Amino acid sequence: MNIAQITLSHRQGIPLYRQLVFALAHAIEQGEIQPGEQLPSERALGQHLGISRTTVVTAYQELEAQGLVRRQVGRGTIVCAVAKDPHASFAWQGKVARGALRASDPTLRLLGEISVDPTIISFAAGIAALDLFPSQLFQEITARIWREQAQRVVELGPTDGLLEFRQAVATMMGVRPSQILALSGSQQGIDLIARCLLDPGDSVLLDAPGYLGAIQIFQAAGAHLIGWDSIHADLNELEDLIVRYRPKLLYTTPTFQNPTGHTLSRQTRLRLLELAARYHLPIIEDDPYRDLAFNFKPPPTLLSLDTQHLVIYLGTFSKTLASGLRLGWLAAPESIVNHLALLKGRSDLFTTSLQQLVVTELLRSGIYTQHIKNMQRAYAQRQAAMLGELRRSSPPDLISSFAVQGGLYLWCQLGYGIDARLALQKALQAGVAFLPGEVFYPDGRGQDELRLCFSAIPPSKIVEGVRRLTQALNELRSAPKQEEHLRR
Amino acid sequence: MNIAQITLSHRQGIPLYRQLVFALAHAIEQGEIQPGEQLPSERALGQHLGISRTTVVTAYQELEAQGLVRRQVGRGTIVCAVAKDPHASFAWQGKVARGALRASDPTLRLLGEISVDPTIISFAAGIAALDLFPSQLFQEITARIWREQAQRVVELGPTDGLLEFRQAVATMMGVRPSQILALSGSQQGIDLIARCLLDPGDSVLLDAPGYLGAIQIFQAAGAHLIGWDSIHADLNELEDLIVRYRPKLLYTTPTFQNPTGHTLSRQTRLRLLELAARYHLPIIEDDPYRDLAFNFKPPPTLLSLDTQHLVIYLGTFSKTLASGLRLGWLAAPESIVNHLALLKGRSDLFTTSLQQLVVTELLRSGIYTQHIKNMQRAYAQRQAAMLGELRRSSPPDLISSFAVQGGLYLWCQLGYGIDARLALQKALQAGVAFLPGEVFYPDGRGQDELRLCFSAIPPSKIVEGVRRLTQALNELRSAPKQEEHLRR
Repeated sequence: MNIAQITLSHRQGIPLYRQLVFALAHAIEQGEIQPGEQLPSERALGQHLGISRTTVVTAYQELEAQGLVRRQVGRGTIVCAVAKDPHASFAWQGKVARGALRASDPTLRLLGEISVDPTIISFAAGIAALDLFPSQLFQEITARIWREQAQRVVELGPTDGLLEFRQAVATMMGVRPSQILALSGSQQGIDLIARCLLDPGDSVLLDAPGYLGAIQIFQAAGAHLIGWDSIHADLNELEDLIVRYRPKLLYTTPTFQNPTGHTLSRQTRLRLLELAARYHLPIIEDDPYRDLAFNFKPPPTLLSLDTQHLVIYLGTFSKTLASGLRLGWLAAPESIVNHLALLKGRSDLFTTSLQQLVVTELLRSGIYTQHIKNMQRAYAQRQAAMLGELRRSSPPDLISSFAVQGGLYLWCQLGYGIDARLALQKALQAGVAFLPGEVFYPDGRGQDELRLCFSAIPPSKIVEGVRRLTQALNELRSAPKQEEHLRR
Repeated sequence: MNIAQITLSHRQGIPLYRQLVFALAHAIEQGEIQPGEQLPSERALGQHLGISRTTVVTAYQELEAQGLVRRQVGRGTIVCAVAKDPHASFAWQGKVARGALRASDPTLRLLGEISVDPTIISFAAGIAALDLFPSQLFQEITARIWREQAQRVVELGPTDGLLEFRQAVATMMGVRPSQILALSGSQQGIDLIARCLLDPGDSVLLDAPGYLGAIQIFQAAGAHLIGWDSIHADLNELEDLIVRYRPKLLYTTPTFQNPTGHTLSRQTRLRLLELAARYHLPIIEDDPYRDLAFNFKPPPTLLSLDTQHLVIYLGTFSKTLASGLRLGWLAAPESIVNHLALLKGRSDLFTTSLQQLVVTELLRSGIYTQHIKNMQRAYAQRQAAMLGELRRSSPPDLISSFAVQGGLYLWCQLGYGIDARLALQKALQAGVAFLPGEVFYPDGRGQDELRLCFSAIPPSKIVEGVRRLTQALNELRSAPKQEEHLRR
């Protein structure tokens, strides 16, 4: 293979390592690199392309995860597209569409696997405090619904969602039931919106750092991603970006943002809405964390401040109750709700009625409101436990973070040039997981940042997890040559 | 508006009425037709375009369903894009992407609404015999899982599905667990496959008539749809189509096909697989009805006959247990399962664990096998009740049908040139629903055909529904001028 043919683009958009994955995977699929052939060493390829060795390492790991290469001590990285797959008599890889090849980052899928590994204390996925889930109440309501409304549980449900669920949510949101669409989790909402509003080549403005699930969906839609620093929230910069890139939509998490925990002020919200109205820019307000405030009243939603009907609001019960419910909703003007409902019908017909019926009962009975208060208290305690232990067990120049006023996350800065992806490997060996900062940026930044979720785990286990983490970081700091060892 | 600018294509692909909907919707969105303006009469536009008046009527009805026009007695069809929508201060309609505009047929969504209307006996949606659902057993198992495994119900689940579910399904299918991906219903599988394998402009071969959910998904993906008559199953014709259109995939329901009930013979399956292997053509085997055989053993699945690993198999518990579960699976070579799992992670993260755990228990305990036998008996009885009453209450030249060996459907031919969409309107007034044949074709054929689902309803109610239907048809036959009345 002639590596001179590979070219990478340093412009904003797809991270370098991902570009490299595509280039190599393509060459393997096209037979330009044959099974059994050895890829260049990470160092050599990095030097040749003018990128860091770490970037090449990450790309090779991705190729390995995709089953295209095998990495062997002493032999380097060997192409195994054919040999490894017992089904390779049919060339599936060559059948995959451009859209599906665009975003192949397996992070979301890995999260599910890590979170069920009992040996790992995971600060990785953004998960509710399941130990505080009102399990007994939930079971009782579930049993009652089965007794009284079994037919409704098993029958074909309406694509828009059950009317009583939409009414209960509409009441909570202060909108009409016809503005509500039930979702199989709010992730589905982002996916439907991308399918409804984006053509390949469209631009999307979004928080950077921001939610990785949204980044992946917009990338897969073939969109050009434009990051906006929502912490500094410079609206002149935002206007410049709008004028320059003519984005098709703005995606933001204005309240207790993921991953930074930041909240946009009321004043910023109003000016943001003004800009959006002036430039006819739809806003996607992703708002999973609003109810999880710690002695703080967040400003009103963009949806409620919006007089121009340009906001699509996404809500979920994943962070307040449990993500296992797969239940969320969107609230938006009827005309776009109808379009999104058509798309939802095509993608999974409807969301299970049982979950909608149980949650409707929780909302109506006031149990949900009481539960939220418990969660707020617990999350505040958990944040305090995590921040306290971070500060006790590590100097701020190794890992630093700020307290947040709500939500699930601490956003941390690593010192000493430690690479967060390397730190994750070391941490996993020590039995603790987090998400490296890079996955929250559309453009490969964030290599020295990471996100810790404090909500999922009781305080005592948080302390143990933080100790494992800071010890792993300390080892990385004192043994920079460790990198070589880890990668082989 | 200058209707002379509208041109329709008579080539195979998008139905004429749908082409007309797009052309008019586009003109309305672009402001070429203004709110308040009157569209040409159905007759005039039909004559001008050289298409039937019925086609124009159907197009106008679609536009009305989309909220773009209003039809008033004495005033004709009036454009109301702005006036009708209270949120039209933001022009959402103009923001919708090409892909989302491609398939706006609301049939799937309407099915959900019709099926919960208690005044209508619905033969429309393909629904299991919910009156025979093992509700008590299901509740007991659900309660036990909540007691013993509450944590697993609420936590983040793996994107691929719970291992025990995949193992149980793999055992049933005779494949490895790593070849199984849990789905939120098999509809999701078709959607994921389309996203994984299709780029806009690709061709897709599929049964015609065939499953409307698949047609809608492939059309939305921008594919060129090529119908293959799977009842006559002429493999020379199939080869011609493959050579001529170079399709990206073949979608088929080889066993108790939807809507015709037809089953491909073992010999045809083997030859189909040979052709697919020769032309490197992936096959999607959608197989929701296999277990619902009436004293008949269907030939082996394409998946099990396939030696080339080119089949993706879709299964579901919607037709044997209940569609309210939203639980299906796919079985395929690992390399393509991995791709599809990545896409699933992006679209809804994972499928609820509770349903997987309950169904795993049903599979392991043998309850499922016993339940299937009950369903087979019941479905055979229901088909007999429907066929018997059809033949008693109507001459075969009005509506005719053949018995099937399994599945959920009778496929019927209307006589006297009765249009099935018109018949549906009349039938709904009489309190009975079905699906018009047209929705099962990618190219607008089937105007004198319709599908009746016999599985959902107990025999006595089936008889009443068939009587309502045949009476409505008899009225249509004796009053052909009815059309004019109905359409206004």
